Amino acid sequence: MKVPDKLVRAILEARSFLIVIHINPDGDALGSALALSRVLKKMGREVTLINNDPIPLMYRYLPGWEAFSRTVPETEPDVLILLDCGEVERTGFKKLPGKLKLVVDHHLTKQNFGDIKWGLSDASSTGEMVFNLIRALDVPLDKDTALCLYTAIVTDTGGFRYSSTSPSSFRAAAELLEAGVDPWHVTKKLYESISSERMALMGKALNSMKRNGEVAVISVTDSMYKETGTSAEDTESFANLARSIKGVEVAVFIRQIGPDSFKISMRSKGRVNVAAIAEAMGGGGHHNAAGGLMKGRLDEVEKRVTTMVQDAFGSHKPE
Amino acid sequence: MKVPDKLVRAILEARSFLIVIHINPDGDALGSALALSRVLKKMGREVTLINNDPIPLMYRYLPGWEAFSRTVPETEPDVLILLDCGEVERTGFKKLPGKLKLVVDHHLTKQNFGDIKWGLSDASSTGEMVFNLIRALDVPLDKDTALCLYTAIVTDTGGFRYSSTSPSSFRAAAELLEAGVDPWHVTKKLYESISSERMALMGKALNSMKRNGEVAVISVTDSMYKETGTSAEDTESFANLARSIKGVEVAVFIRQIGPDSFKISMRSKGRVNVAAIAEAMGGGGHHNAAGGLMKGRLDEVEKRVTTMVQDAFGSHKPE
Repeated sequence: MKVPDKLVRAILEARSFLIVIHINPDGDALGSALALSRVLKKMGREVTLINNDPIPLMYRYLPGWEAFSRTVPETEPDVLILLDCGEVERTGFKKLPGKLKLVVDHHLTKQNFGDIKWGLSDASSTGEMVFNLIRALDVPLDKDTALCLYTAIVTDTGGFRYSSTSPSSFRAAAELLEAGVDPWHVTKKLYESISSERMALMGKALNSMKRNGEVAVISVTDSMYKETGTSAEDTESFANLARSIKGVEVAVFIRQIGPDSFKISMRSKGRVNVAAIAEAMGGGGHHNAAGGLMKGRLDEVEKRVTTMVQDAFGSHKPE
Repeated sequence: MKVPDKLVRAILEARSFLIVIHINPDGDALGSALALSRVLKKMGREVTLINNDPIPLMYRYLPGWEAFSRTVPETEPDVLILLDCGEVERTGFKKLPGKLKLVVDHHLTKQNFGDIKWGLSDASSTGEMVFNLIRALDVPLDKDTALCLYTAIVTDTGGFRYSSTSPSSFRAAAELLEAGVDPWHVTKKLYESISSERMALMGKALNSMKRNGEVAVISVTDSMYKETGTSAEDTESFANLARSIKGVEVAVFIRQIGPDSFKISMRSKGRVNVAAIAEAMGGGGHHNAAGGLMKGRLDEVEKRVTTMVQDAFGSHKPE
């Protein structure tokens, strides 16, 4: 992975930095920002980290997470770096100061924001890009920086499972282990720290599953939240549950958000474009992951969304 | 990882091979054996693969799995290779022929079987050892061989999650990707091919969870099998479910095997030696994973095993 020379030069020449990540920050955004911030401070630079949402509990093992503020600084820094996103709108802030504006991101974006934009849509993660950027800056990896970068790569590759995982992702992981990361420590933090309540909710969600051929629907209702003492944030990644079933091509997750109101999340294994279905319900997303809202009684909503997905199969030629 | 010269020489000098793996074969044993067999055949050698159990359905995507026979050949091969185990007893066969006997294994074993034994108890997997052996034999990796080795490493590291995952495991994975492996393809086969029935059983198992401080107990009964159309083999890895709960130090999984008879599986996060508890019920195992049998009514068994585990906490000093 080649890091643009002008990006490295711009960073080396600046004294003060503002690093900003997207709303609903994930492990890749947080880990990348914290790693880059640590390295810049080691280089004697001033760094301000901001984001517009609370840091999720599960990521509060990342060294330095408390440094994130939600206030845009008043003095303009030499350099603004947008990390893991390519547009100001994605940060949740209106305007971001910075004499020079940089972007480091692995998402496809329409806008062309920034004076220097390093966008690699086939990179596994922004974490892997920052790993290479740090190498280009020629700063040795310490254990805490390595932990941040490892978390970033692990979370955005689904634990080295997605096709975006490349030989260079694995080689980066090897070096991060050499810098002191223990994979089991990270696993315990990310995957082995589920609350009993969330586990009980998962049980109820699985019991709600309705399978119709290649479509599986899982639902979570207000009464399930009440019975298990949980809330919407405990449903994270539930949309993926039914996708892991053999023969299921589209997994639908329905989550109650009001008396007759539901949030729909869809996951496709590839044959069906769920973004098109989401758009038909006024939502949006990507080919394999999309969502929207629906109103009605739960059983009606389950039937309606199942029919919409089955119709979408009809509009695709089988492989 | 240094492969012993005499092992490489012994393989290069032989014409016929018998490769044997352990009973209840897992991804590491199967992947390692199939990879080594492919390479030896490429080198023009005769290879017989045997094991004493059916090949689990989930591993039947491994190229060449049909080659496994359950019959010990009558003619003696030049070389016998025990893979992923170090003792004949672990293979389920009584006697195994071979003019020269080799062992390639990453388990700790008491016996010192074999004329040449390559045992690396800190290697992530036998798959990683075979990867290095194939390099030492100087045979280029083809895509199918790479798929077998990748499966071996992924399964035995819990998807690169366990502490045994080393920089060299990741570097091996990088080369296997370069040889053509798609991580998402392997993920779909290993982790995204759960049956609807198993998923429904998992829901019921989670709903059975009883939490007592640092102990969580999950149970599966005959009536749950009946309601979901499942059987004991659908409970694979259920013992790990409760281990992933925050604050749970010991996870207990109880599975009904008769009217008043239950199989107990325990998983510890490290502070409690569950092997000692298992021995007290006439079973056995390792520090972090052990099991045994108990008789009685389910609610009594749940209480008894919970008490046994809680008593074991008492006998350890808290950290």
